[in-house]
Amino acid sequence: MNYSMIFYLIGWTLNAMAGFMTLPLFVSLYYGESSYLYFIPVIAVSLVLGISLVHKKPKNTVFYAREGFTSFTSVALIWIVLSIVGSLPFIISGEIPHFVDAVFETASGFTTTGSSILVNVEKMSRGMQFWRSFTHWIGGMGVLVLLLAIVPLVGGHNFQLMKAESPGPAVSKFVPKIKKSAAILYAIYIAMTVIQIILLVIFKMPVFDAVVTAFGSAGTGGFGIKVDSMASYSWQIQLITGIFMMLFGVNFTVYYLILTKKFRQAFGSEELRVYILIIALSTLAITFDAGEYFNGFGETLNHAFFQVSSIITTTGFATFDFNVWPTFSKSIIVLLMFIGASAGSTGGGLKVSRIIILTKSVYRELQRTLRPRSVKKVRFDKKPITDDTVRSVGVYLAAYFLVFSLSVLVLSLDNFDFTTSFTATAATINNIGPGLEVVGPAGGFSEFSDLSKIMMIFNMLAGRLEFYPIFSLFYLPFKR
Amino acid sequence: MNYSMIFYLIGWTLNAMAGFMTLPLFVSLYYGESSYLYFIPVIAVSLVLGISLVHKKPKNTVFYAREGFTSFTSVALIWIVLSIVGSLPFIISGEIPHFVDAVFETASGFTTTGSSILVNVEKMSRGMQFWRSFTHWIGGMGVLVLLLAIVPLVGGHNFQLMKAESPGPAVSKFVPKIKKSAAILYAIYIAMTVIQIILLVIFKMPVFDAVVTAFGSAGTGGFGIKVDSMASYSWQIQLITGIFMMLFGVNFTVYYLILTKKFRQAFGSEELRVYILIIALSTLAITFDAGEYFNGFGETLNHAFFQVSSIITTTGFATFDFNVWPTFSKSIIVLLMFIGASAGSTGGGLKVSRIIILTKSVYRELQRTLRPRSVKKVRFDKKPITDDTVRSVGVYLAAYFLVFSLSVLVLSLDNFDFTTSFTATAATINNIGPGLEVVGPAGGFSEFSDLSKIMMIFNMLAGRLEFYPIFSLFYLPFKR
Repeated sequence: MNYSMIFYLIGWTLNAMAGFMTLPLFVSLYYGESSYLYFIPVIAVSLVLGISLVHKKPKNTVFYAREGFTSFTSVALIWIVLSIVGSLPFIISGEIPHFVDAVFETASGFTTTGSSILVNVEKMSRGMQFWRSFTHWIGGMGVLVLLLAIVPLVGGHNFQLMKAESPGPAVSKFVPKIKKSAAILYAIYIAMTVIQIILLVIFKMPVFDAVVTAFGSAGTGGFGIKVDSMASYSWQIQLITGIFMMLFGVNFTVYYLILTKKFRQAFGSEELRVYILIIALSTLAITFDAGEYFNGFGETLNHAFFQVSSIITTTGFATFDFNVWPTFSKSIIVLLMFIGASAGSTGGGLKVSRIIILTKSVYRELQRTLRPRSVKKVRFDKKPITDDTVRSVGVYLAAYFLVFSLSVLVLSLDNFDFTTSFTATAATINNIGPGLEVVGPAGGFSEFSDLSKIMMIFNMLAGRLEFYPIFSLFYLPFKR
Repeated sequence: MNYSMIFYLIGWTLNAMAGFMTLPLFVSLYYGESSYLYFIPVIAVSLVLGISLVHKKPKNTVFYAREGFTSFTSVALIWIVLSIVGSLPFIISGEIPHFVDAVFETASGFTTTGSSILVNVEKMSRGMQFWRSFTHWIGGMGVLVLLLAIVPLVGGHNFQLMKAESPGPAVSKFVPKIKKSAAILYAIYIAMTVIQIILLVIFKMPVFDAVVTAFGSAGTGGFGIKVDSMASYSWQIQLITGIFMMLFGVNFTVYYLILTKKFRQAFGSEELRVYILIIALSTLAITFDAGEYFNGFGETLNHAFFQVSSIITTTGFATFDFNVWPTFSKSIIVLLMFIGASAGSTGGGLKVSRIIILTKSVYRELQRTLRPRSVKKVRFDKKPITDDTVRSVGVYLAAYFLVFSLSVLVLSLDNFDFTTSFTATAATINNIGPGLEVVGPAGGFSEFSDLSKIMMIFNMLAGRLEFYPIFSLFYLPFKR
């Protein structure tokens, strides 16, 4: 195992954290708050530790495929460092005094989950509110992807690292050079975030609100700065946010293809089509089922679209407490929680492409069992689905449900109702935010025990990194 | 497709049904009830139809592997015929007048589910109570397995047929001849049922009650003849039933190995060990969690063991309304619903062997990703787990969750709470019987709409036959 490389990467992560934290520091100063004081020591310590760790460049800065172990472990450790260091301003400022709560909130931020232990987010200082939402934006596209784009260290072949942090069953490089691919990803990400902020401000959202809302949408995170999430904003602001959440749930490859004018290839993406189809059907179904809660078709459609877009992309913003909706609408919401966004987007969940592959693999297996002599190839995005793909997606599903089952058991020790234990697990493992009942949009995660919160921190990290990196930490002690 | 063979098999199924129904007919006569009148026309019509269908033996009575389609479709059609013809006595006697309800109850019987639409089973005549429980016993080991054992038609190589009806990822033949294997299976099944009846009678259970309870345990069905299921019987009777449910959830190969004195092989079965371990751990956990509902450790242990044994084997008998237990105990119950019994037993669910294979495949994939150069073979029952096994179990899981999701959506249209829609689906797809909330042990399925009941009939048949046979009916219209 390449330990020196792991420490080197953690060093750069700490430096990046110091850089990130200067933003909330300036926000705090701008609003004349004292909260900037709490960022300074964290920035200082991060920089000292970070610089000393990157001082000596390792001889070998490239991860090879055969070293899957090192890259997976690095990614897991880096995300744990992020969650702990990122929680320090909350703790020392006393705004979230309890350690487990602060790490929960920060992990929820970086993993773009958006589940919160805060009872009243409106009491928080501007600086801390900004930092909390900014973690979504950082975690959405990934810290390693950023490091790969800007840090000098990484040669040019560190695809393994990017693979370990990027969501979805397959990662596509836009261009042969990882460094350039990562830079293009971030450029698209920044541009879309800025466009959303401008649109929101045009429709009269306060600038601070617009920025944190855009962070929450871009990372598909869902932290808001109001107790009622997005309910008190105008329908125009809700619609813009609904559309942008949907856009951030699309595979970024599609945007790269559009930028390079490969329109046919971009809109031919099977995952994109199914993703839009699911959103359309779910929106219509909820519009017809939950109409009684709203005034007229237009308003119902707007709320239904917002909620569908928010949940399938695993963002978790709410314009309405869907906990009171009829069970059919609630079941659609729960199913969307599991489906999740597209691979290669900032969203979580199982991912639409995995659902497509699994559905087609059932058809494929049926064909193989029923008519073994006349089997036709089953394709996804024009490429035949291979046995290897089916196997690895199937095993992913197994890993998912093993963690899921463990979490439901642990959470139910707190003796909330079954729906709460079940949907709190779904909400954290899929990086969504709210669930149903106690953890519904109008509720929160503060009442869980520390054990449950630690389980959910595990869920959030495991879900965001798609299990294997986090599992690799447990594999370590048994590796011989 | 070998249509003449399909009709021939349906003919023999009808003849067998006529034979089966003579038993409740005699029970009815013995108790001096008028209910025997309603069995006579059904027996007569079944025989007339059956004999005319088997009159001409098809030229080719063997299914080959390449004809997977014909055998899968036969099995599905035969089970639909069973559910409809079996429901006729209930309908024409007026004891379950509504067609969908009667088919639901009968499908629930044959698939050994045990979910009931009856509000008060104690009002039912003895003849109908007997027939209802007898369907469990018939469905437990399977009708085709019986036909393979006794009917002259089937050559000797119809392994495909047995595979399509037997639960679990792999079917083992005890002896090369299918006919003899099927006969041995039924001999063990009958012997164990008789032993349970004798033991129950020794501990002072009325003979009628003992017979129907043994039918419910042997088939892992769970229909009782009392509103409170097994709650009013003595603890000895509960314990005997608990133990027998557990025994019927074991792969019958184990008993064959014991009979042939291959003890080491029998007790070396990995599935058996994990099955017993899960039962032991779950029983202990519930004993410590739900103790407040019972008087002392012994009583708690007895109830906990009974419920664990009842749910993991997917029987569904109850000695207590576990709906009121703490959420941790309820979550264990829900997890056991999914795990299910052993492959090659009469129980349903995903099966312990599939859970073992999936868990090990996660470890296997992890090893392969993390240390691609030093992969060791992962074994199940001393045989290496192959890519093919992992793929087919993974696809099975996908099929399972596709049907599951569809069912939750359809059931939630009835607007019961989410836990009800979720556990009613789990209870029917896994062939268990009760769920939580509205469908808890003290509740029932009568309040669902016809659409939901039809969905659950589909779940029960799909779950019992492990999806592909039922799917094959939908594949038929698209096969070209």
